[in-house]
Amino acid sequence: MNISGLLTSAGINIGVCTVLTSLYSVLRKQPSNLKVYFGQRLAQVQSKGHGPSFFERLVPSPSWIIKAWQTSEEDLFAVGGLDAAVFSRVVIFSMRILSVAAVICIFLVLPVNYFGQSMHHKKIQLESLEVFTIGNVIERSRWMWVHCLALYVITFCACALLYIENKSITKMRLAYITGSPQNLGRFTVLVRAIPWSGKSYSDSVTQFFTKYYPSSYLSHQIVYLPGTVRKLVHDAEKMYNILKAPRISKHCGPSIARCGLCGVTGKSFRFLPDRSAASEEKQDFDDFSKMECPAALVFFRTRYAAHVAAQTLQSTNPMLWVTEMAPEPADVFWANLCVPYRLLWVRRLGSLIASIAFLIFFLVPVSVVQGLVHLDKLKHFSFVRKLSEQRNWIFDLVTGYLPSAMLTLFIFCVPPIMMVFSAIEGPVARSCRKKSASIKVLYFLIWNVFFANILSGSVLQRFDRISSLKDIPLQLAKGIPSMAVFFMTYILTSGWTSLALELMQPISLLLHWLDKCLFRGKHVLSCESQTFPYQTELPRVLLFGLLGFTSSITAPLLLPFLLVYFFFAHLVYRNQFMNVYVTKYDTGGLYWPIAHTAVIVSLMLMQVILLGVFGLKKSAVASSFTIPLIICTFLFHLYCRQRFLPVFKRNVARVIMDMDEQDEHSEKFEEYHEQLQSAAYCQFKSDNCENGTLEVINERLRSSYCSFKSTTLESPLALQQEQSYNSGHDRLQDPEDTKPGNAP
Amino acid sequence: MNISGLLTSAGINIGVCTVLTSLYSVLRKQPSNLKVYFGQRLAQVQSKGHGPSFFERLVPSPSWIIKAWQTSEEDLFAVGGLDAAVFSRVVIFSMRILSVAAVICIFLVLPVNYFGQSMHHKKIQLESLEVFTIGNVIERSRWMWVHCLALYVITFCACALLYIENKSITKMRLAYITGSPQNLGRFTVLVRAIPWSGKSYSDSVTQFFTKYYPSSYLSHQIVYLPGTVRKLVHDAEKMYNILKAPRISKHCGPSIARCGLCGVTGKSFRFLPDRSAASEEKQDFDDFSKMECPAALVFFRTRYAAHVAAQTLQSTNPMLWVTEMAPEPADVFWANLCVPYRLLWVRRLGSLIASIAFLIFFLVPVSVVQGLVHLDKLKHFSFVRKLSEQRNWIFDLVTGYLPSAMLTLFIFCVPPIMMVFSAIEGPVARSCRKKSASIKVLYFLIWNVFFANILSGSVLQRFDRISSLKDIPLQLAKGIPSMAVFFMTYILTSGWTSLALELMQPISLLLHWLDKCLFRGKHVLSCESQTFPYQTELPRVLLFGLLGFTSSITAPLLLPFLLVYFFFAHLVYRNQFMNVYVTKYDTGGLYWPIAHTAVIVSLMLMQVILLGVFGLKKSAVASSFTIPLIICTFLFHLYCRQRFLPVFKRNVARVIMDMDEQDEHSEKFEEYHEQLQSAAYCQFKSDNCENGTLEVINERLRSSYCSFKSTTLESPLALQQEQSYNSGHDRLQDPEDTKPGNAP
Repeated sequence: MNISGLLTSAGINIGVCTVLTSLYSVLRKQPSNLKVYFGQRLAQVQSKGHGPSFFERLVPSPSWIIKAWQTSEEDLFAVGGLDAAVFSRVVIFSMRILSVAAVICIFLVLPVNYFGQSMHHKKIQLESLEVFTIGNVIERSRWMWVHCLALYVITFCACALLYIENKSITKMRLAYITGSPQNLGRFTVLVRAIPWSGKSYSDSVTQFFTKYYPSSYLSHQIVYLPGTVRKLVHDAEKMYNILKAPRISKHCGPSIARCGLCGVTGKSFRFLPDRSAASEEKQDFDDFSKMECPAALVFFRTRYAAHVAAQTLQSTNPMLWVTEMAPEPADVFWANLCVPYRLLWVRRLGSLIASIAFLIFFLVPVSVVQGLVHLDKLKHFSFVRKLSEQRNWIFDLVTGYLPSAMLTLFIFCVPPIMMVFSAIEGPVARSCRKKSASIKVLYFLIWNVFFANILSGSVLQRFDRISSLKDIPLQLAKGIPSMAVFFMTYILTSGWTSLALELMQPISLLLHWLDKCLFRGKHVLSCESQTFPYQTELPRVLLFGLLGFTSSITAPLLLPFLLVYFFFAHLVYRNQFMNVYVTKYDTGGLYWPIAHTAVIVSLMLMQVILLGVFGLKKSAVASSFTIPLIICTFLFHLYCRQRFLPVFKRNVARVIMDMDEQDEHSEKFEEYHEQLQSAAYCQFKSDNCENGTLEVINERLRSSYCSFKSTTLESPLALQQEQSYNSGHDRLQDPEDTKPGNAP
Repeated sequence: MNISGLLTSAGINIGVCTVLTSLYSVLRKQPSNLKVYFGQRLAQVQSKGHGPSFFERLVPSPSWIIKAWQTSEEDLFAVGGLDAAVFSRVVIFSMRILSVAAVICIFLVLPVNYFGQSMHHKKIQLESLEVFTIGNVIERSRWMWVHCLALYVITFCACALLYIENKSITKMRLAYITGSPQNLGRFTVLVRAIPWSGKSYSDSVTQFFTKYYPSSYLSHQIVYLPGTVRKLVHDAEKMYNILKAPRISKHCGPSIARCGLCGVTGKSFRFLPDRSAASEEKQDFDDFSKMECPAALVFFRTRYAAHVAAQTLQSTNPMLWVTEMAPEPADVFWANLCVPYRLLWVRRLGSLIASIAFLIFFLVPVSVVQGLVHLDKLKHFSFVRKLSEQRNWIFDLVTGYLPSAMLTLFIFCVPPIMMVFSAIEGPVARSCRKKSASIKVLYFLIWNVFFANILSGSVLQRFDRISSLKDIPLQLAKGIPSMAVFFMTYILTSGWTSLALELMQPISLLLHWLDKCLFRGKHVLSCESQTFPYQTELPRVLLFGLLGFTSSITAPLLLPFLLVYFFFAHLVYRNQFMNVYVTKYDTGGLYWPIAHTAVIVSLMLMQVILLGVFGLKKSAVASSFTIPLIICTFLFHLYCRQRFLPVFKRNVARVIMDMDEQDEHSEKFEEYHEQLQSAAYCQFKSDNCENGTLEVINERLRSSYCSFKSTTLESPLALQQEQSYNSGHDRLQDPEDTKPGNAP
């Protein structure tokens, strides 16, 4: 492909982006689309302001860009939580380091590449793009030191910036922890693999914790079995019918609340006046303990006590009494709490194998894409020859735009599948599932977009060659310059256009309209509050960072496209965080270690590739200067792991103790204890995404049952009913997470 | 080599073993050698029994064998600690599983191998040994199912036995923990990277722990800088001169003891009557805090409190206030306590790289050895041809005995070097250093004895071939049968003869005699109490296990030799544990996870090699049956890691709490606290291995200073003096550990 081919591709994408962005700036002003484009704001403020006039509504305006630009990090942190701030930091970090790289590479490296060979240069628009890559430099060139210098400067800047970011994000995480004393998950320990005591799991828990943690143990809440959905729905409906009786409905709320707090062991329903109904329920309660899971949420009096209990090996059999910090109430992934602990490692292994298999299987579509890119090399097929002879712009379109569009479409389905794999792994928190899926998608993208595309010829036709490890740098060095064009178009399609689509939210919009037209706004198809799809967006941003690093010196022409992407991404994501996505749960900045590792891998990959290039160009001096750089980068990574990672992995005792001390002084502990013992961990979903027959039951029962369920008085029916609700909705995925619009 | 060559080699070794064993049975009866052969007993009981008569002393007798055989595991546990019991278990486990393998392979597999090809068999003693290996079976043989069946039976038995052993050793470890409430290390936390408070590290520690652990913090003991040895020796001698003054020597002991226990902050020496001397000392004490290390031993009131403090991340900067459980007093490796924590990872990395470099460098002697084994293939060298033509038994000797003897000699120097590498890593416990060295030596042996010998041709001549990973099973499959002969002779020399030498202790004996003759028994050269050299013996036993597994089916003739070895080892090691070696410190069974992993690796290696063999013999059915077995073995390993490993890695809260509760009832806590605050952690060496000028000083000062040093009243001179002593002796290695007699 030459410059004009690239410009064709860029033109198409710029056109698409402009249209979509303009459309967005119009659509967002329509009051009917408020729920699509302002989910976050609606969640915060229920009142509606005065909208713009009818005429203003129809004119595209850049006001959202200004607002996004003006958003400060504090606002982002306040609205989107720490994860949003970290994500924004990742984008800004990429922008900064790639700006440095762009300045160096375009003013230093690009001229060296362009004039690297004594050749006749064509007109600039007909020039092949490969002239701008390092492939154009002759062997044993005296100018290789320029590349080596650029490599040193970029690595040094990246490491310095990374260190600063690490430091400030660590501080942010600590501030986040101290700044959220109301997080009840810090008082709570999730205990799994509770041994059966003969009576019930609940008794085992009470016995164990009153014996070993007498001073700090507060109470616990047992987890109930999912499954047996039908019976539970039936029970819940029966219960609803009992509660519907008008004479008791008035007293119901308060009397239950009292029960929930006074700690009576729940074997009977005191507030049920109907004798026959009550005796019927009693039968249910007798096989109540059979529905218990060997898992419980145990509440402690202080955060430090919970922390200590969570990190300690409790039993001589490490497969029993397994403790870990519980997620926040909104973050709990109830369906996985009942997974037997002894099966977890099998599930993890299975999920790992499935992910790897999926990753390998995906080489098939990638190779199809590659076939299109290298179409000019397949000219012995007659239809290809015809195509290339017939009309030039079609050929440009097919080789320039189609491959990356196809790849984007194929990759469309990856995040939902990875979410399923991550759910199978058995995480107990939604945020953990998302984080795990993010890592999987990242590996997937790096392998299938980066490596497989570069090495594709080798991967498919000469698999044995790849197996010899020392050839890989050479293969990469050969591949990168020639693949630069493909990556440029990939950035244009997957990067720019996806951002515009992210802004537009076409699928949410469509579902919202369909909902409105067909179901009278009952939210059968759409779901109001979405959480940010980190599992698709973070890997994409990191992949583009990787492309930026690896191509910066070998093919500097890529950098301007990437910089535009990151700048656009910076605006779009800020806008989305502030307006569209609701923050229900937070990992507390745990995406940062992933980003850090990805950046280090990118840096080292860049160095290894350049080592290969220097080897190909027979520049011994440059090669010998690169090797210490690789070692230093790795040492820097090891140091950062030591210095920063533990704060992301473990709780800091000092911080927790200080928080406990403060709360003790301000007497807030009692308030938290009350919350814990009443409605904090509620298996009910407080989503507005309700549907089906249980909707009415839910509304009536929620207020009473949640308070009734916790502590020693666990109400089986409430739980049954919740479980039935959850088991339908929440088994493997949230509706918001598999939303097809969120693919890279 | 044929059967007669093997018999020559076996004959030489049996002769050597018999002579050495007889010599041992005579030498051990000589009263003058008591210290060499009964170090352990002497340490336990000081009284001498009546020895045998003069005539009895000169007659070899098998009485030690009977005694060793009758030793029960309880005795071994009582005398040698848990590590000895675990080591003995490893030997017994190997014996058991190889017995099973021997029965199956000799009665089932060996006939199949021998009659695997329709060929004319020579007389049995002229038969080449390769006839007995799997190499003799023809391609596409119908009898391959026998090998596959044997593989299944051996794997199944090994896994079952391993599970049982895991279970019982876990129990033993727990019993060991509960059975040793007097272990003061469980009350102690080692704190490193203490930040400088402006006054002293000691103040920082007091501040920090009284703030965050007010109820459980007892006291602490700061660690002092090593180095500046000369000044310290000088100070110690000056101190000795002061103490030598007769008028104070009588009151010294008690007055110091009182000081040590009453908790006066030690800035002056109250018991020094000489004003001038005291003021001189005072000056020294003023720059006393400059000699502090940023490390301290912090004592807690209960074990659980110490455990919690040890496993918690204390500071927001993970490189400060790093805590871990302290080793037992006798186990502390004082020289490493002062290593700055921030340098530890660099040291670890450096040690790792050095070990790998050493491992690779060692291929040179291995290739020389290989040259000797394949001497018949080097017949184009004239002297080789001459040698092989001249006399047959010399040739047998050179190809049969010399290579393995040379390898043994080369490997002789490995454990001391690995001990140095392990010391550089910065472990704070001697037992940890030994464990780390064991792992290094094990890797070394597996790589250099097993892989390098099998693949040597490939490694040296065709290094590029090895880099293609999938060829490795094939290479191993080709290598194993032909290398079986070499391994047999290796077992004979390195196994049998080394055991006999271990029994004889020739070097200790020599040093002991030299000491006696030249230095009148002052122990200048020899050291009375040795600890068991796990770093040489455990890797050797595990390597022989690996050889047993990998050769069992491919070359079953190896198994009888190995069984004899393990039986002999069982007797010898028991004898040595009961009589020779003193147990000063114990890892608490942490050698078992190493052994477990080694067995699993051996099993999987056996399976992979047989997979390669089945591939070579084109037996698709057998190959396809082997692959699930490999997967199942790996799954079994993963399960065992989950089920048993945590007990070896972490403290079990339940056990510790129960121990604390018992001690609280029996009011033993006060006793322990007193011990901790007085003489428990003493940087003085209580070894009898004293030498040089400090000997007399040591004896007088020890009783007073140890008590004086701990708690808040740290006496600088005592510490200086200890440090000076330690820095000379203890910097990187104990004398007992580098004892040259302990090489595999």
